Amino acid sequence: MKSLFFLIVFGSLPLAIFSQSPDETVIGEIFDNVLLSDKAYRNLEYLCEYTPGRLLGSEESVTALEYMKSYFEEMGVDTVFLQEFKTPAWRCNNTAVTILSGEGDIILRADALGPSPSTPGEGLVARVVEVQGLEELKTLDSDTIAGKIVFFNKPVNLKLVNTFQCYGSAIDQRYHGPALAAEMGAAGVLVRSVTTKHDTFPHTGSTGFEDRKIPCAAISTVDADILSDALKADNNMQVKMVIDAEDLLEITSFNLIADIRGSVYPDEYIVVGGHIDAWFNSPGAHDDGIGCVQSADVLRIFKELGLDNKRTIRAIMFMDEELYQSGGNAYTDYTETNGIKNYLALEADAGGFTPEGFTVDATDSIYDKIAGHKDLLKPYGIHYIRKGGSGVDIGPLKNFGVPLMGYRTDSQRYMDIHHSANDSFDKVHPRELQLGSGCLAAMIYLIDTHGL
Amino acid sequence: MKSLFFLIVFGSLPLAIFSQSPDETVIGEIFDNVLLSDKAYRNLEYLCEYTPGRLLGSEESVTALEYMKSYFEEMGVDTVFLQEFKTPAWRCNNTAVTILSGEGDIILRADALGPSPSTPGEGLVARVVEVQGLEELKTLDSDTIAGKIVFFNKPVNLKLVNTFQCYGSAIDQRYHGPALAAEMGAAGVLVRSVTTKHDTFPHTGSTGFEDRKIPCAAISTVDADILSDALKADNNMQVKMVIDAEDLLEITSFNLIADIRGSVYPDEYIVVGGHIDAWFNSPGAHDDGIGCVQSADVLRIFKELGLDNKRTIRAIMFMDEELYQSGGNAYTDYTETNGIKNYLALEADAGGFTPEGFTVDATDSIYDKIAGHKDLLKPYGIHYIRKGGSGVDIGPLKNFGVPLMGYRTDSQRYMDIHHSANDSFDKVHPRELQLGSGCLAAMIYLIDTHGL
Repeated sequence: MKSLFFLIVFGSLPLAIFSQSPDETVIGEIFDNVLLSDKAYRNLEYLCEYTPGRLLGSEESVTALEYMKSYFEEMGVDTVFLQEFKTPAWRCNNTAVTILSGEGDIILRADALGPSPSTPGEGLVARVVEVQGLEELKTLDSDTIAGKIVFFNKPVNLKLVNTFQCYGSAIDQRYHGPALAAEMGAAGVLVRSVTTKHDTFPHTGSTGFEDRKIPCAAISTVDADILSDALKADNNMQVKMVIDAEDLLEITSFNLIADIRGSVYPDEYIVVGGHIDAWFNSPGAHDDGIGCVQSADVLRIFKELGLDNKRTIRAIMFMDEELYQSGGNAYTDYTETNGIKNYLALEADAGGFTPEGFTVDATDSIYDKIAGHKDLLKPYGIHYIRKGGSGVDIGPLKNFGVPLMGYRTDSQRYMDIHHSANDSFDKVHPRELQLGSGCLAAMIYLIDTHGL
Repeated sequence: MKSLFFLIVFGSLPLAIFSQSPDETVIGEIFDNVLLSDKAYRNLEYLCEYTPGRLLGSEESVTALEYMKSYFEEMGVDTVFLQEFKTPAWRCNNTAVTILSGEGDIILRADALGPSPSTPGEGLVARVVEVQGLEELKTLDSDTIAGKIVFFNKPVNLKLVNTFQCYGSAIDQRYHGPALAAEMGAAGVLVRSVTTKHDTFPHTGSTGFEDRKIPCAAISTVDADILSDALKADNNMQVKMVIDAEDLLEITSFNLIADIRGSVYPDEYIVVGGHIDAWFNSPGAHDDGIGCVQSADVLRIFKELGLDNKRTIRAIMFMDEELYQSGGNAYTDYTETNGIKNYLALEADAGGFTPEGFTVDATDSIYDKIAGHKDLLKPYGIHYIRKGGSGVDIGPLKNFGVPLMGYRTDSQRYMDIHHSANDSFDKVHPRELQLGSGCLAAMIYLIDTHGL
């Protein structure tokens, strides 16, 4: 692309906006500010580099909260506090999965699913039954399954355009597979990582046990192919699983809450948040360090620009989205107990790539009001505001009638890295992050200014 | 993001489309095909790994043409040929820029602009005058400039949302700066790389000389800061520029043209193309290997799906977009000389990131017809079809009334890597590339099916 190209391509764009509405002016100031600020990007670097694997109950999760708390204090917000709650937790110390082969063992790259139990004794050694998903497992009888390791090897459907839908095409075997296999008498479960990438990174995640818990782990997609090929060569070969994990019956944990008080309706809270926890195997850059630092950036933008918010703007770094959703539930309990009015809650937990849109889970009239702001945000990449779900952490507020929203970004790269060691700081583009902060701040500004 | 999230976020999406129009069915088949095909991605890997720096006149440019010609032959297109033309060319053999400092020389990372002349003798040694763009240079008198190296150090305006506009905010000093400095008696020019990234990669590009040519090079943004600081410390310090380059008065070069014959109007050509050349310092992944392999992918898709195109679909790998635009001009001359009817031309030369839209440079009625296809392409990421420029290579066809179009993608990462060694294969995401092939193929299918 040469220089002339610029003239050819952009020659027809409007070069100046001759009269701006007050909203356009403020939104312009928000993006002018955010595109020159590296505060959120540097906060994310800290979270990824110094507090990777910050799962509920970990030391890293506490360090991450302390770091962000100090950041809010330095920023000079009106209130910042840790909202305490009790919850069970879980910890994974080690995962090792090996094909026992006459020609030499083959180590498979694996990470336990949460909350897998430990394997007994020196580890679980068993034959393997490969299936392409829950439906195939259901066709087998319990005698075939009893004492075996069930290997769920259904790949994601790459033909789907949005990678959350690719994820959705195979997530059932990870979430429901271990419970079903346990019910049928299996001794353990291995799951092909639920990802759009064919690589050597295991992608963990949560699984939903019922009565019986059995050890379970995700293996990388490359390793899933290796295991499948090994089974084709020798259907009787065995795999050894070693998982060292522990349930923590009750711990104390926290959400971090920071407020800028509203000038007219200080008791009405507009919440913007992400979740501070990340899987034990991951730096948690896109999932969801970025939602936290962008939410914090909303407060920074309001303060630096001196925007006069009528309602209190509240940023929340939710704990434990990944495992038991204890933080989200605890925040809802806390607000209900204390009669706090959440005017609206907006969650950023769908990656930090180029902005794409917002989803709204609210009444028709509130949806219409919010969707009416689309044209103001279009120049900044928001090309839809549609009805849809919001986020896991704010989800419990729905029962109390709180209007909910989600922030959405380009999904193409997200499921390559999700829940893996590859969800690292270098995968985040500073401008994409900054545009996200700007979209969140602008949306909250519009909601506060014009009401619902 | 945990598994429940999928249900919450996507629970409200339509899960099935109960009745599809014939267009929806074909477009669905196109994307089903392309999202499972790695042909274009592997072709791009070849171009980047085996033919980097494939500037007009280079051996690499010929190898790249031969590779793509073989690919079209294997695909079994109806016609594939090299369209020969004569043109001047230019070659850069070496660029070296050094701050001569009493405390030890400092090497600056630099690449000559095209078509810079060589420096005389052992190199150019001169004092440096820093300016923040063309306007500042015009305020200085010729005595200040005579015999000096002019250093244009205006950074891009990062507040602009689309990075092509960031590029546009500083490109004038690269394109017009050397000519202006030469006119004022300067001995050489250094330009801060026109990029959104602060890093150590020089970003070259073309410059437009008038009567007098002087040696000129781009230095990386980090090195521009180093040079600026060095000048603040010692305004009398000197810089040494060594450029070894040569003008080639006339060479023979080629565009590569491949056709799938139309079944109803075989003499009407729908052109889709990119440019095969890349700057000498760059693998040319996004600029514009990707436009070439996506254009070739359009023919592959039509053949594999057995789509019955009424008009001839023509893929062109244009030579020399970057330096003299000789390939684009030669194709226009060739079609005019031979009375070939270009029904429409579509260029892909704005990066290979997630699809964003199409621009149309045509009459209102043709624009309206094309824009009417937007809703069919929306599920695949096309969220605008607007009036605007097309591409440099097809630009000359405008004089002959050919409707022109450009393919547009998310710009955020593009100007980080443009015209540098960093525009490499690893910066390309396979799904983003595949979606682009699909959008091009679907648009051409719709234009062929419904006419203009």
